[in-house]
Amino acid sequence: MKTNNIVLNLARKRRSIRKYSKEPIDLGDVLYAISVAIQALSGANRQPWRFIIVADEDIKRKIREACEKAEKEFYGSNKLPKWFRKWTKERGITWKKPFLTEAPYLIVVVSNKNAPYSKESTWLAIGYLLLALEEKGIASLTYTPSDSYEVSRILKIPKDYSLEVIIPVGEPAEKKDKEPRLSLRDVLFYNQWDNKAL
Amino acid sequence: MKTNNIVLNLARKRRSIRKYSKEPIDLGDVLYAISVAIQALSGANRQPWRFIIVADEDIKRKIREACEKAEKEFYGSNKLPKWFRKWTKERGITWKKPFLTEAPYLIVVVSNKNAPYSKESTWLAIGYLLLALEEKGIASLTYTPSDSYEVSRILKIPKDYSLEVIIPVGEPAEKKDKEPRLSLRDVLFYNQWDNKAL
Repeated sequence: MKTNNIVLNLARKRRSIRKYSKEPIDLGDVLYAISVAIQALSGANRQPWRFIIVADEDIKRKIREACEKAEKEFYGSNKLPKWFRKWTKERGITWKKPFLTEAPYLIVVVSNKNAPYSKESTWLAIGYLLLALEEKGIASLTYTPSDSYEVSRILKIPKDYSLEVIIPVGEPAEKKDKEPRLSLRDVLFYNQWDNKAL
Repeated sequence: MKTNNIVLNLARKRRSIRKYSKEPIDLGDVLYAISVAIQALSGANRQPWRFIIVADEDIKRKIREACEKAEKEFYGSNKLPKWFRKWTKERGITWKKPFLTEAPYLIVVVSNKNAPYSKESTWLAIGYLLLALEEKGIASLTYTPSDSYEVSRILKIPKDYSLEVIIPVGEPAEKKDKEPRLSLRDVLFYNQWDNKAL
């Protein structure tokens, strides 16, 4: 299927959004994006991914509380590298995670620990998912909680599944530029590492 | 950008191809797909991925030899689970990896071990890459070598980068159906794990 660089346009357009409007979005669009994700390849086609769509306000609030408790400890730690402190400070990123209750839906993605290349396959599928959300004009963020144990308990996730990511989805309540990307020249080699391709 | 379910069509259409024609493909299409991949998000925007396009016949041969040596040991091991033996046997998958020399290009993807969520970010970007290759009508396979040490040495990959995957790309020399996928109903929950969404 030759199309007109649509995938590049979607990839360029997507931004990580941390502020969400409480406006509802079409659940059908969320289901669409998950339908795309489950078409991804996986190690021995084991399809290790499972998805929980969280819409319930009470469950979202519990998740936020559990995450913020862990994040408060994480951000309070004196072990964080300097560059990380600077990076988060410049962007106003703190232990507060309001998007966990403000976004109309959270997509929680988990992976089966017993499947081969489970993490790799699941994150590849998350790549599919994000492009599909962008195609439907839905904003998203990949949030990886500092402590996933409590969230797994709230969501009743079985012990043989790992919580990989929480993806709030909805209408953005902020405008932001895309974080700059390295150029192809910076990341690409030809035949061997020491040989720049461009 | 609302489009007409193009991402779903690409995801549905893509197959993992193990037999390649030696026909050359347009290097511009490969660069296009990598341009898409580097638009992906990453932990703290560290962009931990690097790409090596391998076209040189001699280097491809060396990679194949190193991989097949390791695969021969892997497939000869008596520790492989039964389901895996069955799965590979049914598909004619053995220690032989002809696609490593037959495909016109190999895209080798590595990740910086020192970046946060390096593996997760890189595999998410690989998801972007595969959809972009499909958009250009290029066949691909995600091959994860049993022993990446020797391949890293051949490609002069520095010690702080992990080899994540080798992706042969080219024109397919086989026709195959897509491996079946679970339905949305099988993988989706609403609000909590025990609550089927559909």
